Amino acid sequence: MRISELSEASGVPVATLKYYLREGLLPPGESLGATRADYSEDHLRRVRLVRALVDAGVSVAEARRVTEALDDPPRSRHDLLGRAQYALPAPHAATPVSDEVTGLLADLGWVVGPDSPALHSLSGAIAAARSAGVPLPTDALTGYARASEAVAAVDVSNVPTDDLASALHRVVAGTVLVDPVLAALRRLAQEHVSSRG
Amino acid sequence: MRISELSEASGVPVATLKYYLREGLLPPGESLGATRADYSEDHLRRVRLVRALVDAGVSVAEARRVTEALDDPPRSRHDLLGRAQYALPAPHAATPVSDEVTGLLADLGWVVGPDSPALHSLSGAIAAARSAGVPLPTDALTGYARASEAVAAVDVSNVPTDDLASALHRVVAGTVLVDPVLAALRRLAQEHVSSRG
Repeated sequence: MRISELSEASGVPVATLKYYLREGLLPPGESLGATRADYSEDHLRRVRLVRALVDAGVSVAEARRVTEALDDPPRSRHDLLGRAQYALPAPHAATPVSDEVTGLLADLGWVVGPDSPALHSLSGAIAAARSAGVPLPTDALTGYARASEAVAAVDVSNVPTDDLASALHRVVAGTVLVDPVLAALRRLAQEHVSSRG
Repeated sequence: MRISELSEASGVPVATLKYYLREGLLPPGESLGATRADYSEDHLRRVRLVRALVDAGVSVAEARRVTEALDDPPRSRHDLLGRAQYALPAPHAATPVSDEVTGLLADLGWVVGPDSPALHSLSGAIAAARSAGVPLPTDALTGYARASEAVAAVDVSNVPTDDLASALHRVVAGTVLVDPVLAALRRLAQEHVSSRG
Protein backbone atom coordinates (compact mmCIF):
# COMPACT_ATOMS: atom_id res chain seq x y z
CA MET A 1 0.00 0.00 0.00
CA ARG A 2 1.02 3.64 -0.48
CA ILE A 3 1.85 5.88 2.49
CA SER A 4 -1.59 7.55 2.15
CA GLU A 5 -3.25 4.14 2.46
CA LEU A 6 -1.02 3.25 5.43
CA SER A 7 -2.18 6.50 7.02
CA GLU A 8 -5.82 5.71 6.37
CA ALA A 9 -5.54 2.12 7.66
CA SER A 10 -3.70 3.14 10.85
CA GLY A 11 -5.36 6.47 11.56
CA VAL A 12 -1.88 8.04 11.86
CA PRO A 13 -1.33 11.21 9.76
CA VAL A 14 1.12 11.00 6.82
CA ALA A 15 3.33 13.68 8.44
CA THR A 16 3.63 11.50 11.56
CA LEU A 17 4.44 8.42 9.47
CA LYS A 18 7.25 10.39 7.78
CA TYR A 19 8.51 11.35 11.26
CA TYR A 20 8.50 7.67 12.30
CA LEU A 21 10.48 6.84 9.12
CA ARG A 22 13.06 9.60 9.82
CA GLU A 23 13.41 8.50 13.45
CA GLY A 24 13.90 4.84 12.49
CA LEU A 25 10.73 3.70 14.25
CA LEU A 26 9.34 2.36 10.96
CA PRO A 27 11.50 0.58 8.37
CA PRO A 28 11.41 2.07 4.86
CA GLY A 29 8.89 0.71 2.37
CA GLU A 30 9.88 -1.08 -0.81
CA SER A 31 10.96 1.62 -3.24
CA LEU A 32 8.76 2.02 -6.35
CA GLY A 33 10.71 5.01 -7.67
CA ALA A 34 12.24 8.24 -6.42
CA THR A 35 9.17 9.45 -4.51
CA ARG A 36 7.01 6.35 -4.10
CA ALA A 37 7.24 3.34 -1.80
CA ASP A 38 5.11 0.34 -1.04
CA TYR A 39 4.18 -0.60 2.54
CA SER A 40 3.06 -4.02 3.79
CA GLU A 41 0.85 -5.42 6.55
CA ASP A 42 4.04 -5.65 8.66
CA HIS A 43 4.41 -1.88 8.35
CA LEU A 44 0.80 -1.40 9.43
CA ARG A 45 1.34 -3.60 12.48
CA ARG A 46 4.50 -1.66 13.35
CA VAL A 47 2.75 1.71 13.02
CA ARG A 48 -0.02 0.56 15.35
CA LEU A 49 2.54 -0.64 17.90
CA VAL A 50 4.58 2.59 17.78
CA ARG A 51 1.41 4.67 18.11
CA ALA A 52 0.24 2.60 21.08
CA LEU A 53 3.66 2.82 22.78
CA VAL A 54 3.80 6.61 22.35
CA ASP A 55 0.19 6.95 23.57
CA ALA A 56 1.16 4.85 26.62
CA GLY A 57 3.85 7.42 27.49
CA VAL A 58 6.91 5.65 26.07
CA SER A 59 9.44 8.18 24.71
CA VAL A 60 10.56 8.14 21.07
CA ALA A 61 14.06 7.03 22.12
CA GLU A 62 12.60 4.15 24.16
CA ALA A 63 10.22 3.19 21.33
CA ARG A 64 13.22 3.05 18.98
CA ARG A 65 14.99 0.61 21.32
CA VAL A 66 11.87 -1.55 21.37
CA THR A 67 11.51 -1.57 17.57
CA GLU A 68 15.23 -2.27 17.08
CA ALA A 69 14.78 -5.38 19.21
CA LEU A 70 11.82 -6.40 17.04
CA ASP A 71 13.91 -6.01 13.86
CA ASP A 72 16.35 -8.65 15.14
CA PRO A 73 14.12 -11.67 15.90
CA PRO A 74 15.16 -14.00 18.74
CA ARG A 75 16.91 -17.27 17.96
CA SER A 76 14.86 -19.36 20.40
CA ARG A 77 11.77 -19.18 22.57
CA HIS A 78 14.05 -19.05 25.58
CA ASP A 79 15.75 -15.97 24.11
CA LEU A 80 12.32 -14.39 23.55
CA LEU A 81 11.41 -13.10 26.98
CA GLY A 82 14.95 -12.03 27.74
CA ARG A 83 15.05 -10.03 24.52
CA ALA A 84 11.73 -8.37 25.30
CA GLN A 85 12.72 -7.61 28.92
CA TYR A 86 15.93 -5.92 27.95
CA ALA A 87 14.33 -3.90 25.14
CA LEU A 88 11.51 -2.51 27.24
CA PRO A 89 11.70 0.80 29.10
CA ALA A 90 12.88 0.14 32.68
CA PRO A 91 12.47 2.95 35.22
CA HIS A 92 15.01 3.42 38.06
CA ALA A 93 17.78 1.82 35.94
CA ALA A 94 20.39 3.66 38.07
CA THR A 95 19.01 2.41 41.41
CA PRO A 96 21.17 -0.38 42.87
CA VAL A 97 19.39 -3.71 43.40
CA SER A 98 18.48 -3.79 47.11
CA ASP A 99 19.25 -6.69 49.45
CA GLU A 100 15.54 -6.73 50.23
CA VAL A 101 14.66 -7.42 46.56
CA THR A 102 17.34 -10.11 46.29
CA GLY A 103 15.99 -11.71 49.47
CA LEU A 104 12.37 -11.44 48.33
CA LEU A 105 13.10 -13.27 45.07
CA ALA A 106 15.03 -15.96 46.92
CA ASP A 107 12.10 -16.47 49.34
CA LEU A 108 9.70 -16.64 46.39
CA GLY A 109 11.92 -19.17 44.62
CA TRP A 110 11.94 -17.06 41.46
CA VAL A 111 14.60 -17.81 38.87
CA VAL A 112 15.62 -14.45 37.36
CA GLY A 113 18.84 -13.45 35.61
CA PRO A 114 21.12 -11.25 37.74
CA ASP A 115 21.15 -8.56 35.00
CA SER A 116 17.38 -8.20 34.67
CA PRO A 117 16.55 -4.47 34.43
CA ALA A 118 13.34 -5.10 36.42
CA LEU A 119 15.45 -5.81 39.55
CA HIS A 120 16.52 -2.14 39.49
CA SER A 121 12.98 -0.99 38.65
CA LEU A 122 11.56 -2.93 41.59
CA SER A 123 14.20 -1.64 44.04
CA GLY A 124 13.60 1.95 42.93
CA ALA A 125 9.79 1.70 42.91
CA ILE A 126 9.74 0.27 46.45
CA ALA A 127 12.02 3.09 47.68
CA ALA A 128 9.87 5.75 45.96
CA ALA A 129 6.65 4.40 47.49
CA ARG A 130 8.17 4.24 50.98
CA SER A 131 9.53 7.79 50.72
CA ALA A 132 5.91 8.93 50.17
CA GLY A 133 4.63 7.09 53.24
CA VAL A 134 3.53 3.76 51.74
CA PRO A 135 5.18 1.22 54.08
CA LEU A 136 5.11 -1.97 51.92
CA PRO A 137 5.90 -4.61 54.59
CA THR A 138 7.30 -7.97 53.48
CA ASP A 139 3.96 -9.74 53.58
CA ALA A 140 2.44 -7.09 51.28
CA LEU A 141 5.31 -7.43 48.79
CA THR A 142 4.95 -11.22 48.92
CA GLY A 143 1.20 -10.92 48.29
CA TYR A 144 1.79 -8.62 45.32
CA ALA A 145 4.45 -11.01 43.98
CA ARG A 146 2.11 -14.04 44.14
CA ALA A 147 -0.58 -12.07 42.30
CA SER A 148 2.04 -11.07 39.72
CA GLU A 149 2.82 -14.75 39.12
CA ALA A 150 -0.83 -15.25 38.18
CA VAL A 151 -0.63 -12.26 35.82
CA ALA A 152 2.56 -13.61 34.24
CA ALA A 153 0.99 -17.06 33.78
CA VAL A 154 -1.75 -15.41 31.68
CA ASP A 155 0.89 -13.39 29.79
CA VAL A 156 3.01 -16.44 28.97
CA SER A 157 0.02 -18.63 27.98
CA ASN A 158 -1.01 -15.99 25.43
CA VAL A 159 2.32 -15.82 23.58
CA PRO A 160 1.73 -17.23 20.09
CA THR A 161 3.76 -20.32 19.24
CA ASP A 162 3.77 -19.97 15.45
CA ASP A 163 6.76 -17.75 14.68
CA LEU A 164 9.26 -16.00 16.91
CA ALA A 165 8.92 -12.56 15.31
CA SER A 166 5.17 -12.53 16.02
CA ALA A 167 5.80 -13.83 19.52
CA LEU A 168 8.32 -11.06 20.25
CA HIS A 169 5.92 -8.42 18.94
CA ARG A 170 3.19 -9.81 21.17
CA VAL A 171 5.37 -9.96 24.29
CA VAL A 172 6.68 -6.43 23.86
CA ALA A 173 3.29 -4.92 23.02
CA GLY A 174 1.53 -7.01 25.66
CA THR A 175 3.94 -6.10 28.43
CA VAL A 176 3.68 -2.34 27.85
CA LEU A 177 0.02 -2.15 26.86
CA VAL A 178 -1.46 -4.55 29.41
CA ASP A 179 0.03 -2.53 32.34
CA PRO A 180 -2.75 0.11 31.96
CA VAL A 181 -5.38 -2.67 31.72
CA LEU A 182 -4.08 -4.09 35.00
CA ALA A 183 -3.99 -0.63 36.63
CA ALA A 184 -7.67 -0.10 35.76
CA LEU A 185 -8.64 -3.61 36.93
CA ARG A 186 -6.81 -2.97 40.24
CA ARG A 187 -8.86 0.19 40.89
CA LEU A 188 -12.12 -1.62 40.11
CA ALA A 189 -11.08 -4.58 42.26
CA GLN A 190 -10.27 -2.21 45.16
CA GLU A 191 -13.78 -0.81 44.97
CA HIS A 192 -15.27 -4.31 44.84
CA VAL A 193 -13.13 -5.77 47.64
CA SER A 194 -13.72 -2.79 49.94
CA SER A 195 -17.50 -2.93 49.34
CA ARG A 196 -17.48 -6.54 50.58
CA GLY A 197 -15.39 -5.76 53.72
CA MET B 1 10.05 23.83 61.02
CA ARG B 2 11.16 26.61 58.65
CA ILE B 3 10.99 26.17 54.86
CA SER B 4 14.76 25.55 54.78
CA GLU B 5 14.33 22.69 57.26
CA LEU B 6 11.38 21.33 55.27
CA SER B 7 13.65 21.37 52.24
CA GLU B 8 16.42 19.54 54.07
CA ALA B 9 14.07 16.92 55.54
CA SER B 10 12.36 16.23 52.20
CA GLY B 11 15.29 16.64 49.82
CA VAL B 12 13.15 19.04 47.73
CA PRO B 13 14.78 22.43 46.94
CA VAL B 14 13.28 25.57 48.56
CA ALA B 15 12.45 27.00 45.10
CA THR B 16 10.42 23.88 44.31
CA LEU B 17 8.62 24.09 47.68
CA LYS B 18 7.67 27.70 46.86
CA TYR B 19 6.37 26.48 43.50
CA TYR B 20 4.25 23.83 45.26
CA LEU B 21 2.87 26.55 47.58
CA ARG B 22 2.00 28.83 44.64
CA GLU B 23 0.34 25.94 42.76
CA GLY B 24 -1.74 24.94 45.78
CA LEU B 25 -0.06 21.52 46.06
CA LEU B 26 1.13 22.36 49.59
CA PRO B 27 -1.02 24.28 52.10
CA PRO B 28 0.58 27.42 53.56
CA GLY B 29 2.52 27.12 56.83
CA GLU B 30 1.46 28.84 60.02
CA SER B 31 2.49 32.48 59.64
CA LEU B 32 5.21 33.67 62.04
CA GLY B 33 5.40 37.17 60.51
CA ALA B 34 5.52 38.79 57.09
CA THR B 35 8.28 36.56 55.66
CA ARG B 36 8.38 33.54 57.97
CA ALA B 37 6.14 30.51 58.33
CA ASP B 38 6.19 27.32 60.34
CA TYR B 39 5.72 23.91 58.68
CA SER B 40 4.60 20.68 60.37
CA GLU B 41 5.13 16.95 59.90
CA ASP B 42 1.91 17.01 57.85
CA HIS B 43 3.61 19.39 55.42
CA LEU B 44 6.61 17.09 55.19
CA ARG B 45 4.36 14.12 54.43
CA ARG B 46 2.54 16.16 51.78
CA VAL B 47 5.81 17.26 50.12
CA ARG B 48 7.01 13.66 49.92
CA LEU B 49 3.70 12.59 48.36
CA VAL B 50 3.70 15.39 45.78
CA ARG B 51 7.30 14.67 44.88
CA ALA B 52 6.57 10.97 44.47
CA LEU B 53 3.47 11.66 42.34
CA VAL B 54 5.39 14.01 40.05
CA ASP B 55 8.27 11.52 39.80
CA ALA B 56 5.72 8.84 38.87
CA GLY B 57 4.61 10.95 35.90
CA VAL B 58 1.48 12.55 37.37
CA SER B 59 0.97 16.10 36.01
CA VAL B 60 0.84 19.12 38.32
CA ALA B 61 -2.87 19.60 37.53
CA GLU B 62 -3.59 15.95 38.41
CA ALA B 63 -1.48 16.18 41.58
CA ARG B 64 -3.52 19.23 42.61
CA ARG B 65 -6.75 17.26 42.24
CA VAL B 66 -5.28 14.50 44.40
CA THR B 67 -4.15 16.89 47.14
CA GLU B 68 -7.49 18.75 47.09
CA ALA B 69 -9.18 15.44 47.82
CA LEU B 70 -6.74 14.89 50.71
CA ASP B 71 -7.58 18.31 52.17
CA ASP B 72 -11.23 17.30 52.51
CA PRO B 73 -11.09 14.06 54.55
CA PRO B 74 -13.78 11.43 53.93
CA ARG B 75 -16.73 11.13 56.30
CA SER B 76 -16.64 7.32 56.52
CA ARG B 77 -14.47 4.36 55.61
CA HIS B 78 -16.98 3.52 52.91
CA ASP B 79 -16.48 7.00 51.41
CA LEU B 80 -12.71 6.49 51.52
CA LEU B 81 -12.06 4.35 48.47
CA GLY B 82 -14.63 6.18 46.40
CA ARG B 83 -12.97 9.50 47.25
CA ALA B 84 -9.55 8.15 46.34
CA GLN B 85 -10.80 6.60 43.08
CA TYR B 86 -12.37 9.79 41.87
CA ALA B 87 -9.37 11.93 42.82
CA LEU B 88 -6.80 9.79 41.06
CA PRO B 89 -5.69 10.38 37.47
CA ALA B 90 -7.81 8.19 35.16
CA PRO B 91 -6.62 7.73 31.57
CA HIS B 92 -9.14 7.34 28.71
CA ALA B 93 -11.78 9.35 30.64
CA ALA B 94 -13.49 10.20 27.33
CA THR B 95 -13.74 6.56 26.16
CA PRO B 96 -17.30 5.21 26.56
CA VAL B 97 -17.65 2.19 28.86
CA SER B 98 -17.78 -0.84 26.54
CA ASP B 99 -20.44 -3.56 26.72
CA GLU B 100 -17.55 -6.00 27.06
CA VAL B 101 -16.35 -4.32 30.27
CA THR B 102 -19.87 -4.15 31.69
CA GLY B 103 -20.30 -7.86 30.88
CA LEU B 104 -16.91 -8.80 32.31
CA LEU B 105 -17.69 -7.16 35.65
CA ALA B 106 -21.10 -8.83 35.77
CA ASP B 107 -19.48 -12.24 35.09
CA LEU B 108 -16.89 -11.55 37.81
CA GLY B 109 -19.60 -10.54 40.27
CA TRP B 110 -17.82 -7.28 41.01
CA VAL B 111 -19.83 -4.54 42.72
CA VAL B 112 -18.62 -1.24 41.24
CA GLY B 113 -20.39 2.11 41.04
CA PRO B 114 -21.63 2.99 37.53
CA ASP B 115 -19.66 6.28 37.58
CA SER B 116 -16.26 4.76 38.44
CA PRO B 117 -13.61 6.46 36.25
CA ALA B 118 -11.74 3.14 36.03
CA LEU B 119 -14.56 1.72 33.87
CA HIS B 120 -13.57 4.21 31.17
CA SER B 121 -9.84 3.58 31.76
CA LEU B 122 -10.35 -0.17 31.37
CA SER B 123 -12.43 0.18 28.20
CA GLY B 124 -9.84 2.52 26.66
CA ALA B 125 -6.82 0.45 27.70
CA ILE B 126 -8.32 -2.74 26.22
CA ALA B 127 -9.05 -0.94 22.93
CA ALA B 128 -5.51 0.54 22.82
CA ALA B 129 -3.88 -2.86 23.41
CA ARG B 130 -6.02 -4.55 20.73
CA SER B 131 -5.27 -1.82 18.19
CA ALA B 132 -1.57 -2.70 18.62
CA GLY B 133 -2.12 -6.42 18.02
CA VAL B 134 -2.59 -7.69 21.60
CA PRO B 135 -5.78 -9.78 21.33
CA LEU B 136 -6.87 -10.02 25.03
CA PRO B 137 -9.47 -12.81 24.79
CA THR B 138 -12.11 -13.09 27.53
CA ASP B 139 -10.25 -15.80 29.44
CA ALA B 140 -7.12 -13.61 29.58
CA LEU B 141 -9.10 -10.62 30.88
CA THR B 142 -10.76 -12.88 33.45
CA GLY B 143 -7.36 -14.19 34.56
CA TYR B 144 -5.99 -10.67 34.90
CA ALA B 145 -9.10 -9.65 36.86
CA ARG B 146 -8.75 -12.54 39.34
CA ALA B 147 -5.09 -11.62 39.90
CA SER B 148 -6.17 -8.00 40.40
CA GLU B 149 -8.56 -9.12 43.14
CA ALA B 150 -5.57 -10.61 44.97
CA VAL B 151 -3.67 -7.33 44.53
CA ALA B 152 -6.65 -5.32 45.82
CA ALA B 153 -7.01 -7.60 48.84
CA VAL B 154 -3.42 -6.72 49.81
CA ASP B 155 -4.14 -3.03 49.13
CA VAL B 156 -7.25 -2.98 51.30
CA SER B 157 -5.68 -4.97 54.15
CA ASN B 158 -2.89 -2.38 54.36
CA VAL B 159 -5.13 0.67 54.77
CA PRO B 160 -4.59 2.01 58.30
CA THR B 161 -7.65 2.00 60.53
CA ASP B 162 -6.62 4.78 62.91
CA ASP B 163 -7.81 7.97 61.25
CA LEU B 164 -9.50 8.64 57.94
CA ALA B 165 -7.10 11.37 56.77
CA SER B 166 -4.12 8.98 57.13
CA ALA B 167 -6.09 6.25 55.43
CA LEU B 168 -6.94 8.46 52.45
CA HIS B 169 -3.31 9.53 52.13
CA ARG B 170 -2.26 5.88 52.15
CA VAL B 171 -4.84 4.79 49.59
CA VAL B 172 -4.03 7.59 47.16
CA ALA B 173 -0.25 7.24 47.51
CA GLY B 174 -0.46 3.44 47.51
CA THR B 175 -2.62 3.27 44.42
CA VAL B 176 -0.37 5.49 42.30
CA LEU B 177 3.01 4.40 43.70
CA VAL B 178 2.42 0.65 43.91
CA ASP B 179 1.54 0.47 40.16
CA PRO B 180 5.29 0.68 39.26
CA VAL B 181 6.10 -1.95 41.93
CA LEU B 182 3.54 -4.27 40.31
CA ALA B 183 4.87 -3.54 36.81
CA ALA B 184 8.39 -4.54 37.89
CA LEU B 185 7.13 -7.67 39.69
CA ARG B 186 5.19 -8.65 36.55
CA ARG B 187 8.34 -8.48 34.40
CA LEU B 188 10.32 -10.57 36.92
CA ALA B 189 7.45 -13.06 37.20
CA GLN B 190 7.31 -13.37 33.40
CA GLU B 191 10.98 -14.31 33.37
CA HIS B 192 10.45 -16.80 36.19
CA VAL B 193 7.28 -18.38 34.75
CA SER B 194 8.77 -18.70 31.26
CA SER B 195 11.96 -20.30 32.63
CA ARG B 196 9.80 -23.03 34.21
CA GLY B 197 7.76 -23.68 31.02
